[in-house]
Amino acid sequence: SSTSKDNDESRDYDEATQKALEEIDACQNEIDALNEKASDEILQVEQKYNKQRKPYFEKRNAIIKKIPNFWVTAFVNHPQISMVLEEEEEDCLHYLTKLEVEEFDDIKSGYRINFHFDKNPYFENSIITKEFHLGTSGDPASQSTPIQWKEGNDLTKSSKEKMLDKGKKRQLEKRSFFTWFTNHADPSADDIAEVIKDDMWPNPLQYYLVPDIDMEENGVDGD
Amino acid sequence: SSTSKDNDESRDYDEATQKALEEIDACQNEIDALNEKASDEILQVEQKYNKQRKPYFEKRNAIIKKIPNFWVTAFVNHPQISMVLEEEEEDCLHYLTKLEVEEFDDIKSGYRINFHFDKNPYFENSIITKEFHLGTSGDPASQSTPIQWKEGNDLTKSSKEKMLDKGKKRQLEKRSFFTWFTNHADPSADDIAEVIKDDMWPNPLQYYLVPDIDMEENGVDGD
Ligand SMILES: [Ca+2]
Ligand SMILES: [Ca+2]
Ligand SMILES: [Mg+2]
Ligand SMILES: [Mg+2]
Repeated sequence: SSTSKDNDESRDYDEATQKALEEIDACQNEIDALNEKASDEILQVEQKYNKQRKPYFEKRNAIIKKIPNFWVTAFVNHPQISMVLEEEEEDCLHYLTKLEVEEFDDIKSGYRINFHFDKNPYFENSIITKEFHLGTSGDPASQSTPIQWKEGNDLTKSSKEKMLDKGKKRQLEKRSFFTWFTNHADPSADDIAEVIKDDMWPNPLQYYLVPDIDMEENGVDGD
Repeated sequence: SSTSKDNDESRDYDEATQKALEEIDACQNEIDALNEKASDEILQVEQKYNKQRKPYFEKRNAIIKKIPNFWVTAFVNHPQISMVLEEEEEDCLHYLTKLEVEEFDDIKSGYRINFHFDKNPYFENSIITKEFHLGTSGDPASQSTPIQWKEGNDLTKSSKEKMLDKGKKRQLEKRSFFTWFTNHADPSADDIAEVIKDDMWPNPLQYYLVPDIDMEENGVDGD
């Protein structure tokens, strides 16, 4: 309970107050210990159910593979994910056969999103991964698989060039799927990753089935 | 898995797709059931530890009573709570002898904050409570004890009058402790209640001991 003393009132407490403060501190330590035990138990529950859910997610992925264009349809119908999908990227995502979100075993420390692709005209990789983990500072950091673009088909380049054509303002506003995937500037505010992890992955069926009502208005299919 | 069909593509799936969609739906139901079981178990853990923490919070409150002006000092030193404290309200809070945050037994449905006051020149009540509970719609609603102000000492009135004097812009920005207490316009965005519940209540000692470094700059003590 030691602390800085740079305020304008005296911190030389009288004896009774000093004793009371120490008793509060002791009490606080007991509360902190219980908080930590509670966190540990909650983590154990989450781990147990992650394990129990896993075979259902795997079964779901096996079934999803039987439905042509399941993921690209779900992505296009998702109000936030669709916002970052450029036309050519949407074409590329027709080759996306499997999505996986894996929380690390200790949950707290991070997760990864795996995108499995069929052989496609855009890149050589069959799996590309964006991964989030807590750095030593406690802040999240992200990294992603370097994409081996095929000659002339680098979708981050073509989207950058397009953006330059449209002027600076547009360039600042516009995001795309692959610039999201390769961007690690602000991992604690990666809204697309969070939406994939916390909204798409828990229930993609609803997005496959229900199209975004704003789709036409947003111009996604208008060109 | 039935849904609206007002999009521009056919939703008459072929037989294999229809079967796969039903299988995904069945899988999803299993996942949903596990999610619910996980939530229930986590709730039980939280309830267990709330119960275990309770005697320490009560003991802490008993010790705090021995320290003059503990709560008003902690409030004044808290960066966000101090922002809503007017000079006269700070005087009033010298009579605050006990703070309690009580989560409802099922936790999810709400909580209340009890403020216990010594006999004071401002109001008749000895306990005033602000309470949050989920309405039938699932949105939070709040209510609070009607304060029985003593003649000429209604701090919400005097603060309103002061604000009128200072013009409209100031009026919109300025908040005060008792206008917070009596305001139920947007309970889902009640930042002061959340700060009391999630930051002050878990560890008030740190705010009693460490003054807000910005205190002078914020002008709280400058007039
Ligand atoms: Ca859209
Ligand atoms: Ca301050
Ligand atoms: Mg399109
Ligand atoms: Mg003051």
